[in-house]
Amino acid sequence: MDNHAISSTIDAVRSTHPLVHNITNYVTVNDCANALLAIDASPIMSDDETDVVDIQTICNGLVVNIGTLNAATIAGMHAACAQAAACAHPIVLDPVGAGASALRTQTAADILDKYPVSIVRGNMSEIKALASGATSTRGVDVCPDDAVTEDNLAASAAFAKDFAARTNTTVAITGAIDIVANADRAFAVRNGSALQGRITGAGCMLSCLTGAFAVANEDRLAAALGAVTTMGVAGNLAEERMKPGDGNASFRTYLIDALFNMDGPTLAERALVEEIL
Amino acid sequence: MDNHAISSTIDAVRSTHPLVHNITNYVTVNDCANALLAIDASPIMSDDETDVVDIQTICNGLVVNIGTLNAATIAGMHAACAQAAACAHPIVLDPVGAGASALRTQTAADILDKYPVSIVRGNMSEIKALASGATSTRGVDVCPDDAVTEDNLAASAAFAKDFAARTNTTVAITGAIDIVANADRAFAVRNGSALQGRITGAGCMLSCLTGAFAVANEDRLAAALGAVTTMGVAGNLAEERMKPGDGNASFRTYLIDALFNMDGPTLAERALVEEIL
Amino acid sequence: MDNHAISSTIDAVRSTHPLVHNITNYVTVNDCANALLAIDASPIMSDDETDVVDIQTICNGLVVNIGTLNAATIAGMHAACAQAAACAHPIVLDPVGAGASALRTQTAADILDKYPVSIVRGNMSEIKALASGATSTRGVDVCPDDAVTEDNLAASAAFAKDFAARTNTTVAITGAIDIVANADRAFAVRNGSALQGRITGAGCMLSCLTGAFAVANEDRLAAALGAVTTMGVAGNLAEERMKPGDGNASFRTYLIDALFNMDGPTLAERALVEEIL
Repeated sequence: MDNHAISSTIDAVRSTHPLVHNITNYVTVNDCANALLAIDASPIMSDDETDVVDIQTICNGLVVNIGTLNAATIAGMHAACAQAAACAHPIVLDPVGAGASALRTQTAADILDKYPVSIVRGNMSEIKALASGATSTRGVDVCPDDAVTEDNLAASAAFAKDFAARTNTTVAITGAIDIVANADRAFAVRNGSALQGRITGAGCMLSCLTGAFAVANEDRLAAALGAVTTMGVAGNLAEERMKPGDGNASFRTYLIDALFNMDGPTLAERALVEEIL
Repeated sequence: MDNHAISSTIDAVRSTHPLVHNITNYVTVNDCANALLAIDASPIMSDDETDVVDIQTICNGLVVNIGTLNAATIAGMHAACAQAAACAHPIVLDPVGAGASALRTQTAADILDKYPVSIVRGNMSEIKALASGATSTRGVDVCPDDAVTEDNLAASAAFAKDFAARTNTTVAITGAIDIVANADRAFAVRNGSALQGRITGAGCMLSCLTGAFAVANEDRLAAALGAVTTMGVAGNLAEERMKPGDGNASFRTYLIDALFNMDGPTLAERALVEEIL
Repeated sequence: MDNHAISSTIDAVRSTHPLVHNITNYVTVNDCANALLAIDASPIMSDDETDVVDIQTICNGLVVNIGTLNAATIAGMHAACAQAAACAHPIVLDPVGAGASALRTQTAADILDKYPVSIVRGNMSEIKALASGATSTRGVDVCPDDAVTEDNLAASAAFAKDFAARTNTTVAITGAIDIVANADRAFAVRNGSALQGRITGAGCMLSCLTGAFAVANEDRLAAALGAVTTMGVAGNLAEERMKPGDGNASFRTYLIDALFNMDGPTLAERALVEEIL
């Protein structure tokens, strides 16, 4: 997977305008919609059990984010996943806060178990919680002990490949170093800015982008790598735009703006992607 | 309706500070509140059946947006509409995604049928869905075949007038060219920016503005034209402010900023409003 | 409480990274999360009755904001408050719209009655509604007659101290002049910008900040004063950054940016805090 192959994934999104159905938390939903619009995808948000089947039917893919789940939206998630499966649409799961509460861990595990999820996108603590029921003590943030580093990169990649194999998914584990893996191959992405951790929604937006990339790119690994790299390069560009007086609110604006302006050549030039062999 | 008459509608909003009760989707609600505050109106959001009657009673008008409807909020919409009717407050309906799901089409049709809705604000696909049960295949976006163009302008105006007559409303059908009509007259508004389609919430914000304009301006056609023109001119101004590196997130900021700075003279100078005879 | 003592309160937040559980309205929740991240706190949003106990257990404090309450989230508020009490975590209550509806007044009063709320943060109309059942006619905004002014400052401070004594809380009543009081002492804070009233969420963000300050600073009065002053100075800095063409959307960005850049020396230099004797 060279940088040219990765850059073609965003071209595929921009030329096909994927219609993406999102069941996502109310904290970051506005940024998610604008991030999708930035890359020429069309977002629809719908979470009610009686609405999601019709909506999923006219869409091309589904993103389920459990960030502010409740009894009603969980029912909506299941109905939407079942319909996405029936339509053979890709499903992206973002297990926000898995490990932080039994409800979150169980809901994410149920969805992963019952439906043909294509791509799981989370931080390492969340993915570990899904893999083993491990408990997170930092809520929706990664626990410092779980962070992917240069030192544990090989072990982290092996874990990611094993998780992908056991769940029959492609997995994107994001943090300072991102890992994207399926059962056979794992890649490290070293783009991105530390400021992404100082805004809410960087992960949620990435999950939604991943949904659009998965609609537009049949190869799941390429789709996930394309989305992760797009967000990472956007993070780099946004950080470079920061000026005195700016803070995390300006960074959020710059990040979505960078998505809006992202094109294949920029991605090809700036992507820092390496296979972990 | 000359530009001077239109410019007076925003002066009426700024001088009377309408208190507007909004039942609106959680995707764009923050932008809706800031858009109302930008024009010196006061927003209140309340959607629970047991809360909306008291809230509507102290407010001056109601905006119902079905963007992320669910069983609980639908009950709230009905209770709020009934109270708005009892108080003789204007009701603005935004049928987001009507035609995209049976629940949305039915909910919007029910509200239109049961309560004295003053103004309906939507895109052409949504209004066609309300008029005839037509199905939209682009979710919350207008279907390309439905877009108002110079070629179909006369037919679109006739459709709008007919819809307004049959529903006893004023209707604002927005897109590249906006149409505002009641049973007797139709106007085209040619302000606005294509970038409004690249952010979430341009339509939702306009519906909320329309609520404020309807409170402050008894003439429904003038109110709807004033709101549509205000948003269109704000779109023009926001686009003019775009600089290299900016994207849809900056545009969103500039759009609300332009609403904040909008005054009668600017509106009078820049409004591109024409009666369709 | 001199400016040095106040400036140390934000240092305590930044060095301890409080994990704050928020049950807050969907209008301003994104800004609330970014405001907490701006001061190096970690936000988690969770409102479902079956999720909040686990989440509160791993957090350090709770903020309850009743801005868009409904039957389901009210149940979540009670479960979360009970668990916060069991864990001896500070609870901050923001009674948004108390006085504007019976549901809001009653819900806020119930929470204040049943749980050991540490700090109440609201505008004067809301606090009066909690104190006496007074009805607000301006919804979520302060009624003009209730505004704290130089003329009624002594009486307002006496009211605040009495409210704090009767409810066993520290109270932060914010407006053009802010009052922070416990049973024994009251302070006026004269920082802030009138533009804070032209965005949605200035109060909600402050309540969330107050939660982080209460976790990091055992002295409740210092915590509330620190949070109120931090937001006020951020308002001053944001207003100073306004340039031609900017409006309330830019101000919102600048306000959160100013929180991001706030440090002890800036707070010590700019805080306008005076004890009301």
